[in-house]
Amino acid sequence: MSNVNDLPTPCLLLDLDRFESNLDKMSRFVRQRGVALRPHAKTHKCVEIARRQLEKGAIGICVATIAEAELMARAGIRGLLITAEMVGEPKISRLIQVVSDAPDTMVVVDDASNVGELQRAAASAGIRIPVLIDLDVGHNRTGILPGESPLQLAESIGRAQNLALKGICAYAGHIAHVNGFEDRGVRSRQAMAQAVATREQLSRSGHNMEILSGASTGTYNIDAEIKGVTELQAGSYVFMDVDYRRIGGTSGALYDDFSPALSVLSTVVHRSGNKAVVDAGLKAFATDRAFGPEPLTLSGVTFEFAGDEHGRLTLRNPTQDIQPGDRLRFIIPHCDPTVNLYDRLYCVRGELVEDAWSIMDRGLGSPYF
Amino acid sequence: MSNVNDLPTPCLLLDLDRFESNLDKMSRFVRQRGVALRPHAKTHKCVEIARRQLEKGAIGICVATIAEAELMARAGIRGLLITAEMVGEPKISRLIQVVSDAPDTMVVVDDASNVGELQRAAASAGIRIPVLIDLDVGHNRTGILPGESPLQLAESIGRAQNLALKGICAYAGHIAHVNGFEDRGVRSRQAMAQAVATREQLSRSGHNMEILSGASTGTYNIDAEIKGVTELQAGSYVFMDVDYRRIGGTSGALYDDFSPALSVLSTVVHRSGNKAVVDAGLKAFATDRAFGPEPLTLSGVTFEFAGDEHGRLTLRNPTQDIQPGDRLRFIIPHCDPTVNLYDRLYCVRGELVEDAWSIMDRGLGSPYF
Repeated sequence: MSNVNDLPTPCLLLDLDRFESNLDKMSRFVRQRGVALRPHAKTHKCVEIARRQLEKGAIGICVATIAEAELMARAGIRGLLITAEMVGEPKISRLIQVVSDAPDTMVVVDDASNVGELQRAAASAGIRIPVLIDLDVGHNRTGILPGESPLQLAESIGRAQNLALKGICAYAGHIAHVNGFEDRGVRSRQAMAQAVATREQLSRSGHNMEILSGASTGTYNIDAEIKGVTELQAGSYVFMDVDYRRIGGTSGALYDDFSPALSVLSTVVHRSGNKAVVDAGLKAFATDRAFGPEPLTLSGVTFEFAGDEHGRLTLRNPTQDIQPGDRLRFIIPHCDPTVNLYDRLYCVRGELVEDAWSIMDRGLGSPYF
Repeated sequence: MSNVNDLPTPCLLLDLDRFESNLDKMSRFVRQRGVALRPHAKTHKCVEIARRQLEKGAIGICVATIAEAELMARAGIRGLLITAEMVGEPKISRLIQVVSDAPDTMVVVDDASNVGELQRAAASAGIRIPVLIDLDVGHNRTGILPGESPLQLAESIGRAQNLALKGICAYAGHIAHVNGFEDRGVRSRQAMAQAVATREQLSRSGHNMEILSGASTGTYNIDAEIKGVTELQAGSYVFMDVDYRRIGGTSGALYDDFSPALSVLSTVVHRSGNKAVVDAGLKAFATDRAFGPEPLTLSGVTFEFAGDEHGRLTLRNPTQDIQPGDRLRFIIPHCDPTVNLYDRLYCVRGELVEDAWSIMDRGLGSPYF
């Protein structure tokens, strides 16, 4: 066990006390509500975290890529749901291997030609692939529209002898960050009502609809109240980020149901006037949001990106005591793509580094040579 | 050797014909101008590319992090220049190891206290560290201002018996992307004039000023004409990106001195109406620029990010033949942080995959457990 000050920077810190409290809180919540939790691992890409989620009662793990599915399946994680369509031979051949090893692995489909591809590959391998219909409830990405005959798609899955329909996946990603708990509630209930209605329609037609998967960290406590939603796929709650903290919660403008457990540790490398420069820039934080990282504890300090390896801090108080060599922590703007920049999470409790957990080898995604 | 269509997606493709032509063009340019080239490896983090740059006459390789320096030094690459200050014990102890193994490795300094840190560590290890003064010619990041007594800093380096002053590093990063070749020229000459004057001042005072390093891919053919600039640290020219293509070149609005050699290969996973969705999103492209990826060949198609793993294409022509399973290539918005997202470059010539080159193991940056 070592001290956090010995860590190389920039690096990713996981505050174990906060992380465990986030796990516990979500675990208690879904138990009390009687809804299942299959949390999304695209947030963390980390076997150690998936295991802890399962230990706390999660029924499985969602993943977004075939590489994430391979990582989890190899580690013995079961109950996988691949929430993105697997299209084209390179991915489907890997999917066949994953389902052969972990037969309860589910994958979403939104298109009859993909059903055909999956059926041929599954038949040829002599396996059966459990599938969910990916329903587009307004996210405008993948998924079949509720008006676009999900029934026809269900029937085409029904005819595919090597596929087994299990239900519907309806991820309302466009609502996850709607500002204000009330507005978010109204919009999520509207969106998910389409999924519930589709589920009832297909069920009446005799299709197996045991699963309706929905919810983000922004809507976990909204969708859990919707009759017909059977499981939540929220992921970011384990870490939190600036993005989710800004959307507002049940108790006010700050969404603080879960604690910011993830931060980037940086070193100050320059100080002059009211400027300090840290060794964390475009390669240390995802930049897909309109706002930057926020200091975890310092106030009166704003961050702006200053190239691949640097962030420029402007200090409201030019006499603030920040010197080269000082170590500063920042809450990250958006957790999923930031975690994707690192190989490991350093797990800290107070100032002590208790452990280091591997984030998925990016190379696992492309084992070509 | 395999076909590009067998590669897993999303992945990073390097078009070898274009890459080699970029290498050759820069190599001919610096030879004709009589200026040295020490290209920046923060762009590629790839030993194979650094080796090819050296084979084509580069005098060394610039790096931005201690992990990049370690990677290159272990691979036998010499003539390293670390263009970011190494501050704090964790980095300095690694720097000492790199300089012990590769004694011509240089590092920049901008502060007397850092000079002290480096001197104590070098003395204790019994080595001498070559250093450049990092001069801030307007980038407003690290570096000492020309008005802030670079002479005093040179004298403090002079008193440090285990440091050896070699010159000045003046990276005008704020000018790299100034639009229009003429404007860029005016501004770069203004910025670099301060560096040339500082070099002359320190030289007259008896300090060794054999090196003045400057220039980006945006200013390579501007700074090369400035008397007193001894070497160029341009990096992006090997790959190019949307960002540099937009700044304008000597012949017009498109900067095409170098060819776009790098692209992301994606698979279409959904098609409906005038929308197509590919499997490349926030985790496949850096998002630090205001513009997104551009299709390498298709026209009438715009890209917008649609989450971690997806990009949404809007087709001007709704009858355009783009189907699930199709493979599309995109020029990346900004090369350095995009390369940082991948483990390898697939090297293609036409449709054939000739090789795969490793991009630096992110883990090398933090070998803690």
